[in-house]
Amino acid sequence: MEPSSGTGDARPAVTPVAVVLPAGGSGERLGGATPKQFCAVQGRPLVSYTVQAMERISWISDIIVVVSPGKIETMKSIIEKYGHKRVTIVKGGITRHRSIFNGLKVFTENEFSNHLLQKPEVVIIHDAVRPFVEEDILSKVVVAAKEHGAAGAIRPLVSTVIASAADGCLDHSLERAKYRASEMPQAFLFDIIYEAYQQCTDYDLDYGTECLHLALKYCKTNAKLVEGTADLWKVTYKRDLYAAESIIKDSLSQQVCVITDAKEAAAQVGFLLHESLKSQIKVEAISLSLSKDHSHLQNIISGQCYNFVCVNDKKHAIQETQQVVDMLEKSNIPLLYPVVLISVQLDISENISFSIGMEELTRIKKFARDVKNENILVYGLLIQYKVCNSP
Amino acid sequence: MEPSSGTGDARPAVTPVAVVLPAGGSGERLGGATPKQFCAVQGRPLVSYTVQAMERISWISDIIVVVSPGKIETMKSIIEKYGHKRVTIVKGGITRHRSIFNGLKVFTENEFSNHLLQKPEVVIIHDAVRPFVEEDILSKVVVAAKEHGAAGAIRPLVSTVIASAADGCLDHSLERAKYRASEMPQAFLFDIIYEAYQQCTDYDLDYGTECLHLALKYCKTNAKLVEGTADLWKVTYKRDLYAAESIIKDSLSQQVCVITDAKEAAAQVGFLLHESLKSQIKVEAISLSLSKDHSHLQNIISGQCYNFVCVNDKKHAIQETQQVVDMLEKSNIPLLYPVVLISVQLDISENISFSIGMEELTRIKKFARDVKNENILVYGLLIQYKVCNSP
Repeated sequence: MEPSSGTGDARPAVTPVAVVLPAGGSGERLGGATPKQFCAVQGRPLVSYTVQAMERISWISDIIVVVSPGKIETMKSIIEKYGHKRVTIVKGGITRHRSIFNGLKVFTENEFSNHLLQKPEVVIIHDAVRPFVEEDILSKVVVAAKEHGAAGAIRPLVSTVIASAADGCLDHSLERAKYRASEMPQAFLFDIIYEAYQQCTDYDLDYGTECLHLALKYCKTNAKLVEGTADLWKVTYKRDLYAAESIIKDSLSQQVCVITDAKEAAAQVGFLLHESLKSQIKVEAISLSLSKDHSHLQNIISGQCYNFVCVNDKKHAIQETQQVVDMLEKSNIPLLYPVVLISVQLDISENISFSIGMEELTRIKKFARDVKNENILVYGLLIQYKVCNSP
Repeated sequence: MEPSSGTGDARPAVTPVAVVLPAGGSGERLGGATPKQFCAVQGRPLVSYTVQAMERISWISDIIVVVSPGKIETMKSIIEKYGHKRVTIVKGGITRHRSIFNGLKVFTENEFSNHLLQKPEVVIIHDAVRPFVEEDILSKVVVAAKEHGAAGAIRPLVSTVIASAADGCLDHSLERAKYRASEMPQAFLFDIIYEAYQQCTDYDLDYGTECLHLALKYCKTNAKLVEGTADLWKVTYKRDLYAAESIIKDSLSQQVCVITDAKEAAAQVGFLLHESLKSQIKVEAISLSLSKDHSHLQNIISGQCYNFVCVNDKKHAIQETQQVVDMLEKSNIPLLYPVVLISVQLDISENISFSIGMEELTRIKKFARDVKNENILVYGLLIQYKVCNSP
């Protein structure tokens, strides 16, 4: 989907990498009936954002989402609705560690999946409730895991950590600078973390939560710690859902989908537009032929995109724009926020005429007026130019 | 201001209590130029919400806000604009501990204040960036501090805490259940925390942050730890500002100001309304005489209230409602969100007339139409009733 922003040499391109996303939590700290990973943020479940964050990374082969038995159908419908790819749903256990272990078993045991997935060299373990993970940190933990066997993202402590005595009074406080909060993502050589889970006790499986600890305890692997960014935080409380919503709104407003005709000049302009925009904002660039099915565009629309640029030859421009408008109207997108649609019409001819240009502009003006009621704001841009056949 | 929700016996009513709010931080983690305590949330600086949370508690005598030298004028204007009371501004030091120490000195040294404030028995230390503190936890830490000398709010850890080795690898992870995050508020017998600050080293003052630790180290006082609620969290990152904004919006929508005539039937209806509403939502109830100055109402309006009920005798109803509308128009409040104003008009007479009632309703309808453009939605309710002089 979105072009990766060039992590360069750090990209672990040739290593087979899979992701396990435990999403079986009950969300009791949120104080709501719906587990937080299934709470809607901008009308879309949180887990879908996290899956999307993983699926846009080309070097991740499989995304294993582990959900509680009662949520399997919910998860299936989320995958279908938002068109997620490379996802396998696995039934979780009663604790976080048991769920992760189940997730790992899809690569080794037949019972967890219709077909055995290819065992990755490195497996990333992340949380469904940390939707803002970037390629950079994923790449860093994978590279570190290849070298050290295990790696995990860390963050500075926000609060001082204290130990209490049996009487409920302060025993001692930890020196904040010496400790870190262990966050996600973490990455492991598959064989190390699988071995650790096979060896660990029922007590570990029932009461532990920290995978780095298991790798250390059972495989003597001291994980490499990688400083992560603030956006790795975990949606834990209701206030975190508010924060996630605001961050997602911010990021949606900075995302644009460029749609072009599949051929000739329009595709070329679309490519140039994509190149010049991509350092500033997130750009999805797609080429469509009028006759083909539009499932990719459908996916982008259900992924809540609010800004579109349609670049077309003058002949098809209104027709193509109308198709995008139709798809937007069918979705709920313009109900939530106004959608901006810029229709760029290319008029390539030998004889450029001012009056024909004015006619075109009148046509697009009328079109814009008609769809404005649907909360879709169409802007038209007509580019007339001569093709020079220079030798 | 707002009626306290009955903490009952836990309320440390007779103990002189003051609060020190360190607000000198630079907010570097937020990644913005404005320190987070001065960031606007719903158009109002965060520190003002925290001061308000303290000032609505009747048993807190003084609120000492410690700000960096460059922010003294800003803080003064905030206090003036939002009509805060019982606040003393103190110049902060270069670190958190030095700022808190300066805040404590207003009770012991003349140089920090025009007049020496009365030394409290217990001092609460809180953060300017934790605006959602409730009376319940403040009361609990004060009671515990009286008994134990020191007390602090704690919360479960959200993430596992780990120690790293010199090579940047995991050394060990702490067992999460045995540790807690130390949060605010904390409370101390004044003499204990002041003694601790007097004894502590420059290293402590420059690099430490934890007051409970100082009380333990220098006064052998093991603070009582009190489990706090999730809303004690500290606004640290930009996402926390988003969360704070959403929480404040939620709470504003559940706040109503009941304004009544100072005398007779209207005051009585206002009192009954207040009594029946207060278990559901936050109610400010005020009685005004038409001729008096309206500084209290002005404060409520600058505190961003969006719901008003005016209860008046029919004779003054439109006039009183108009006054509230005038004050709202002068403020920025209706620019941000629509204000709802319910005008309850009491018609107490011997001879109830249907046609007079209709006239009144037409009058209020016209009034409502006029002010709707200002984003003020007026609803009228006319109550006609006979006074029975039963023996």
